[in-house]
Amino acid sequence: MKLFEGERLDYIAGTDLEILQSPHVFSFSIDAILLGRFVHVPIQKGNILDLCTGNGVIPLLLTTRSKATIIGVEIQNKLVEMAKRTIELNKLHNQIQVVESDLNEIPVEVKRGFFDVVTCNPPYFETITENEKNRNEHFAIARHEIYCTLEDVIRVSSQHVKQKGKVALVHRPERLTDIIELMRHYRIEPKRIQMIHPKANKEANMVLVEGIKDGKAGVTCLPPIVVYNEQGTYTEQFSSIYEAK
Amino acid sequence: MKLFEGERLDYIAGTDLEILQSPHVFSFSIDAILLGRFVHVPIQKGNILDLCTGNGVIPLLLTTRSKATIIGVEIQNKLVEMAKRTIELNKLHNQIQVVESDLNEIPVEVKRGFFDVVTCNPPYFETITENEKNRNEHFAIARHEIYCTLEDVIRVSSQHVKQKGKVALVHRPERLTDIIELMRHYRIEPKRIQMIHPKANKEANMVLVEGIKDGKAGVTCLPPIVVYNEQGTYTEQFSSIYEAK
Repeated sequence: MKLFEGERLDYIAGTDLEILQSPHVFSFSIDAILLGRFVHVPIQKGNILDLCTGNGVIPLLLTTRSKATIIGVEIQNKLVEMAKRTIELNKLHNQIQVVESDLNEIPVEVKRGFFDVVTCNPPYFETITENEKNRNEHFAIARHEIYCTLEDVIRVSSQHVKQKGKVALVHRPERLTDIIELMRHYRIEPKRIQMIHPKANKEANMVLVEGIKDGKAGVTCLPPIVVYNEQGTYTEQFSSIYEAK
Repeated sequence: MKLFEGERLDYIAGTDLEILQSPHVFSFSIDAILLGRFVHVPIQKGNILDLCTGNGVIPLLLTTRSKATIIGVEIQNKLVEMAKRTIELNKLHNQIQVVESDLNEIPVEVKRGFFDVVTCNPPYFETITENEKNRNEHFAIARHEIYCTLEDVIRVSSQHVKQKGKVALVHRPERLTDIIELMRHYRIEPKRIQMIHPKANKEANMVLVEGIKDGKAGVTCLPPIVVYNEQGTYTEQFSSIYEAK
């Protein structure tokens, strides 16, 4: 397989899957892996949609947990091309399809009210300085709410998930209020919340949230995930999740 | 001091304060103590309001952290009387006042838009069976949304707190979505959330939430509190908070 300048092949933790990454364009992070392991998926069949799919890390990981067909939507052509080559490399083209599209203009072939599960690891930051924008446009688009806001993500998720289907996001805890309020507004009832803390005595720096379209009220707050122990190495708990040990 | 039938005197953990309890009417729980230690209070002066104050445990605890004057509001006459005797016993009548009132009919002397801090450990359960109601009316009122709903609590808190003042609640995590949505609706912006887990690998069974009236968006998710270690005794972290060690 031909690698373009700056690209490299990495393994997805806890799998035999290789993924094309480019530190100049986009590399997946712990966030995406944790979301891919957190979300409830149908095992034997169904349809999954991953918004802001980037280089396709969440669809790839989900193939190890589900036989469902998976569509990833990504706005950046460079990332779509990388995701497609990664899918070929792993011979997963029968299970995963990547669609190049603005989240707010998803083509009708990606059906509304159709998916059992919608996942998204969206851009985290609301605002951006001109300086940040100019430094690296690819990073800027992946990290900042330039082409889609949190509200767009939740509205589009709600449009595409089917009745009683699941919507799962990873985000910064500081946006938890917005996430919960927007989910309710778009009829995604939050059902599971899990905080990720870098250490046991530190504030959370990520949060996983899963909701159900028109689900009953009542949310479960799962045991926290603690990434590092006092020695600065991964906790057993984190390894068991992240590396599926 | 005269004790009525079924009453006993207990210490509030980590303090020299004694409090009248009655297992047949009401006993304070870990929840109230954790809320009393969690909430941000003015140290030297100010005004604090505690809704659903019960036997007055939160106002009592707060006197160890603040010189502010404190008003507790309680609907049940038996509990108001116990709280008043407890306050006399501890010679805190210059700092704490207890008002017997329905939360939804608070007298005008308890001023609106006046308090630096409003706290509440409200009834947790939305519904009640006839059987539960008949078994013990005092417990039923303290535990179930008979005379006040979560929405009442948050609306009244918002009415009485001053601009940029704080509102802090303890509740069941399953109501977190409702708490966050209602707080926003009544202009209390959630600023700090802390989960309490009975053990590190168990779901949260309490949640502490503090918001600011007309505060800026953005919430901090604090390190989780874990009550018991694997040996079934209090964790050091929990003791240090609960018993103020």
